[in-house]
Amino acid sequence: MTGLADTLKECGAIKFGNFTLASGKKSDFYVDIKKASMNPEILKMIACRVRDLMETRSISGNYIACVALGGVPIAVSVSLETGLPLVIIRKESKEYGAKGQIVGEIEKGRSAILVEDVTTTGGSILKAIKILRDEGMVINHVITVVDRDEGAFKNLADADVRLTALVSIKELLKK
Amino acid sequence: MTGLADTLKECGAIKFGNFTLASGKKSDFYVDIKKASMNPEILKMIACRVRDLMETRSISGNYIACVALGGVPIAVSVSLETGLPLVIIRKESKEYGAKGQIVGEIEKGRSAILVEDVTTTGGSILKAIKILRDEGMVINHVITVVDRDEGAFKNLADADVRLTALVSIKELLKK
Repeated sequence: MTGLADTLKECGAIKFGNFTLASGKKSDFYVDIKKASMNPEILKMIACRVRDLMETRSISGNYIACVALGGVPIAVSVSLETGLPLVIIRKESKEYGAKGQIVGEIEKGRSAILVEDVTTTGGSILKAIKILRDEGMVINHVITVVDRDEGAFKNLADADVRLTALVSIKELLKK
Repeated sequence: MTGLADTLKECGAIKFGNFTLASGKKSDFYVDIKKASMNPEILKMIACRVRDLMETRSISGNYIACVALGGVPIAVSVSLETGLPLVIIRKESKEYGAKGQIVGEIEKGRSAILVEDVTTTGGSILKAIKILRDEGMVINHVITVVDRDEGAFKNLADADVRLTALVSIKELLKK
């Protein structure tokens, strides 16, 4: 078990009970890392892990991107740690068109690494990837803090994107 | 002129033209510091300024709070710089009640320093202050990167909150 998995568990990242997920699916556990990502020490730990992972796996990019709101604290922290500028994709809204959902200056042909707090099926990340690719950006990598192992890995691979999780759901569920 | 004002201007924080503000009021300039707050170097500079201001003015608190989405990168950066945990107030939504708009764990009787990117009349900050005070939190200070000098100072003072701006609109408008 990694130190980060322990830290997340101490922060109540895993809750047992009867939950209905956003997809409508039932689950007997719920992953919530909001408490962890509101804590600057843990946020810094996560950012250092992401930076180390980028170095050891030679994952490079020009921007750190994320989906609002969950991924923003993590992305800001990774941006500060790596020096790469930030791009935020707002949730869909009638007020903004697809391009208006992008906060930050982007350049065609440049690449972004997406960071996320928790991935399940990867649905919201795939929407963000489409928005960024439609603007000519290159997206090959998503780094998530926790992957629930419910399809995100395969769904992202089908879109030619590699998902890497800092902590697996197995590590979090281990007593 | 401070170094931060120059940096913001270089980042296109001030645009001249004909604008209609969120309040409906017309203006011949627009303040947009999104480009600046997506840049980790400037974000770090802003966070250091906020930390220094807190020290020199003896502004203390238990949390760094902000309103989504504009204030979040600044608040995360200040949270990392000061070690104070983060609290985010979501924009109003039917999905969440007033308490559900608060992201982060808070404790009654503890105090939060609100940080914001740009203040105009202070309307959205005042809503956030009400939500936090209704939960028993103490709010005495708001620190904004730029104040447009259009009522926020007085409106916040009327609510017993002191507003401090890192950069004044006069500095930004100076050629």
